[in-house]
Amino acid sequence: MDVLESAFHPNAVAVAGASEDPFSFGYHYVRHLLDYGYPGHIYPVNPRRETIQGLKAYPNLTSIPEPVDYVICCLPASKVPDLLAECPSRGVKVVHLLTARLSETGRQEAKDLESRILQEARRSNVRLIGPNCMGIYYPGGGISLGYGFPKEAGIVGAVFQSGGASDLLVRHGELQGLRFSKVISYGNALDLDESDFLNYLAHDDETKVIAAYFEGAKDGRKLLNALTDAVRVKPVIAIKGGRGLAGTRAAASHTAALAGSNVIWETAFRKAGVIQAQDIRELVNFLVAFSFLPPIRGNRVGIFGGGGGMSVMSADICEEAGLVLPPLPAEFREKLRTKAPEIWDWVGNPVDVSIMGGISRGLEAVIGEFPEMIAESPQFDFIITEMAEDNPFPEDIWSVVVKRQTEAYINVSRKQLKPMIAVVGGGETSYDESKNMRWRALAEQRARLINAGIPTYSTIAEAARAVRQVIGYWQTREET
Amino acid sequence: MDVLESAFHPNAVAVAGASEDPFSFGYHYVRHLLDYGYPGHIYPVNPRRETIQGLKAYPNLTSIPEPVDYVICCLPASKVPDLLAECPSRGVKVVHLLTARLSETGRQEAKDLESRILQEARRSNVRLIGPNCMGIYYPGGGISLGYGFPKEAGIVGAVFQSGGASDLLVRHGELQGLRFSKVISYGNALDLDESDFLNYLAHDDETKVIAAYFEGAKDGRKLLNALTDAVRVKPVIAIKGGRGLAGTRAAASHTAALAGSNVIWETAFRKAGVIQAQDIRELVNFLVAFSFLPPIRGNRVGIFGGGGGMSVMSADICEEAGLVLPPLPAEFREKLRTKAPEIWDWVGNPVDVSIMGGISRGLEAVIGEFPEMIAESPQFDFIITEMAEDNPFPEDIWSVVVKRQTEAYINVSRKQLKPMIAVVGGGETSYDESKNMRWRALAEQRARLINAGIPTYSTIAEAARAVRQVIGYWQTREET
Repeated sequence: MDVLESAFHPNAVAVAGASEDPFSFGYHYVRHLLDYGYPGHIYPVNPRRETIQGLKAYPNLTSIPEPVDYVICCLPASKVPDLLAECPSRGVKVVHLLTARLSETGRQEAKDLESRILQEARRSNVRLIGPNCMGIYYPGGGISLGYGFPKEAGIVGAVFQSGGASDLLVRHGELQGLRFSKVISYGNALDLDESDFLNYLAHDDETKVIAAYFEGAKDGRKLLNALTDAVRVKPVIAIKGGRGLAGTRAAASHTAALAGSNVIWETAFRKAGVIQAQDIRELVNFLVAFSFLPPIRGNRVGIFGGGGGMSVMSADICEEAGLVLPPLPAEFREKLRTKAPEIWDWVGNPVDVSIMGGISRGLEAVIGEFPEMIAESPQFDFIITEMAEDNPFPEDIWSVVVKRQTEAYINVSRKQLKPMIAVVGGGETSYDESKNMRWRALAEQRARLINAGIPTYSTIAEAARAVRQVIGYWQTREET
Repeated sequence: MDVLESAFHPNAVAVAGASEDPFSFGYHYVRHLLDYGYPGHIYPVNPRRETIQGLKAYPNLTSIPEPVDYVICCLPASKVPDLLAECPSRGVKVVHLLTARLSETGRQEAKDLESRILQEARRSNVRLIGPNCMGIYYPGGGISLGYGFPKEAGIVGAVFQSGGASDLLVRHGELQGLRFSKVISYGNALDLDESDFLNYLAHDDETKVIAAYFEGAKDGRKLLNALTDAVRVKPVIAIKGGRGLAGTRAAASHTAALAGSNVIWETAFRKAGVIQAQDIRELVNFLVAFSFLPPIRGNRVGIFGGGGGMSVMSADICEEAGLVLPPLPAEFREKLRTKAPEIWDWVGNPVDVSIMGGISRGLEAVIGEFPEMIAESPQFDFIITEMAEDNPFPEDIWSVVVKRQTEAYINVSRKQLKPMIAVVGGGETSYDESKNMRWRALAEQRARLINAGIPTYSTIAEAARAVRQVIGYWQTREET
């Protein structure tokens, strides 16, 4: 999709409907280009202003003194055809139509206008992203669709029919360590469609994992092909929006999408090898696993940490998610017999640190060594480490204990003996953490684990479901 | 269970094995009584100290100058029989045996010692909580099993075989607004067992909802009866720990529990009407719904807020959880026709605020009125309000918008027209929120909603599953 290169690496960008009003998209998109350091010329277009946000403004496209590859259009729908007619004068290749209130309103006059827009684009030899969409987030190129997104680039590419949902993906993903190569929100898909964007990301070297959110498909066969091709080269994780009755109605009024039968979608995803996620949280969880874990081909897990009931529940949850917890191997116990005579025959998998008789003294050496022993054993394919956050000590001792656990986990992870996944109990941020030492300390440990490149979840249920997807992906690739 | 009254309202408490060493339970339990303001006399027992934490220490129980209803025993297992033999001298009624390393180790000598402890207790006419357990958290009576638990009391009572898991319940529950009447952790259940504690909470006026965590059952028939009796008077939500192979092994080495067939447990729960939760997060989610929602008997939900893809996914998730989203009623649209001519025929259920054309101006009146209109309509049994956190404004405007949404939701909730559940997108606390305005603002809004008594979740999936349990509970009660 060469034409999309013009959107991601435009020689210059014009913002039609640029504005000084901070409630308007014409304001946001000029500011995003400035905030994210877009390196080329930015041309605000507004016939009623001399300057916009410190930049010289132009009354129309034609008056811009150089060719412009990419136009972001924030104009009301009725003005779009005229804008498109101007495009050939500046050699415009792609227009992002943020402009909405078209076919998604369900109104006939809006649908007619949308058809006229497509005709005009064809006549002007311009390709469209949208309408009714947030466009592009490309941190590597200084282009954004939201405030406060990460400026560093990453490896997750996203094709999202919903711009708002792509916003949630970026913000929630950031908290768990995800960074993005390119995010494309495409709304009503009047011209360029989901398959075009997918094909682009499949062949994009900056993208290693693809996230997708679809409400409808412009061309089902084309999409199935695009998905199949993409899955051949990288993992694709998708949400289908509009699975039921009310969701289908909502999708129609959101992006004018014909949601189609959910059975057909699920069949297509299965055929193509697409991993399906239910919502943004699950999508982020899966992306974290695919982004940070090496290939895992077996489902035998050694679990370390937890404590008491937490370890029991962790075992249940992992088994229910399709993982296997082998008992501790005999040679393992033999090593423990001298190192930890009090627990060598008692401790199991999960390795429950609460029975270690004071994790901050005495058996400290074993705690440091235990995760490594699991990582070394051929009985296990990967490790899950849990934070024993319920340790019963006063706050000062408690916080030292959680810190030491984190250090032990990071040390073992660095040795790259086995893939590791971390679980740190997550308080939702309803509480004033700055006043609560415990939640603040856990947040700090979580941040350290994430910064060390360890996929980190707040429940083992989420961790287990995510790693299961990774195992399934690599097992399927082995077979084919 | 009159004897348990002696544990919750003891005339005095002795801590056997009291200590100044902050790594020891003998330290923690003296300090908890001081920290939580236990109103009676506290008697540290330790033959090697004159004072402990500022309190006069006693060499043994017999030397204490008055009768003592309740003893917390932090001694090593071998010393427990002698302690129990001393109990009649001070009229002790209940002993909490924090003491562990008994039958849960799987070792014969430990099992034999556990049997001797039970014999000694019978001989001394003393009832036991434990061994191998954290005991009691009763904020109303100044008794705690952990540092930093809420000092205010609430309506959730808990029977937990695992003390660590009860710690997680209290801490994670607190974040979502739960407060507790009485929490009992009972470990190996050598004497008093899960059924005794359940019976107590079933008849306890301070307890309106019961949470439970079981690894095994001392007496299956007795437990089924206790569960059935409890469900008759209040909702009971339970986790069964040790559902699979590895979990069963883990339960045995944790509380010496015979986990038993999971099918039998599920059948018993179903027969008794117990609601089953998978893990602590789900348990907290369900408890929040039962604690804050009035009876709901229908499953028709009106959803307000969200935006675009978020609204589409919310519709899907709610339907998949067994809820019904009726379309907006005709009289509803008529009211909108004049108030919101741009969207009256377009907007649906979920009511997507992102199409309202600038939620912070213009249609502000409608946004305030919309949730109320849903609450008034007989077409809906309850409301879910979502935070439109993906609104595209700069940070200052964005934070005003989320604040206004919260205010609108709280205002409608106060009118008590319909039960309301709130969803505020939750960032796990991995990020330094104090530096990130967005997550901090969302945390503040969440706290406001929780303080207003509105059950609040970080995903609509969690909200929908939780409210479904409430509906099911009340529908079943209607039928019987």
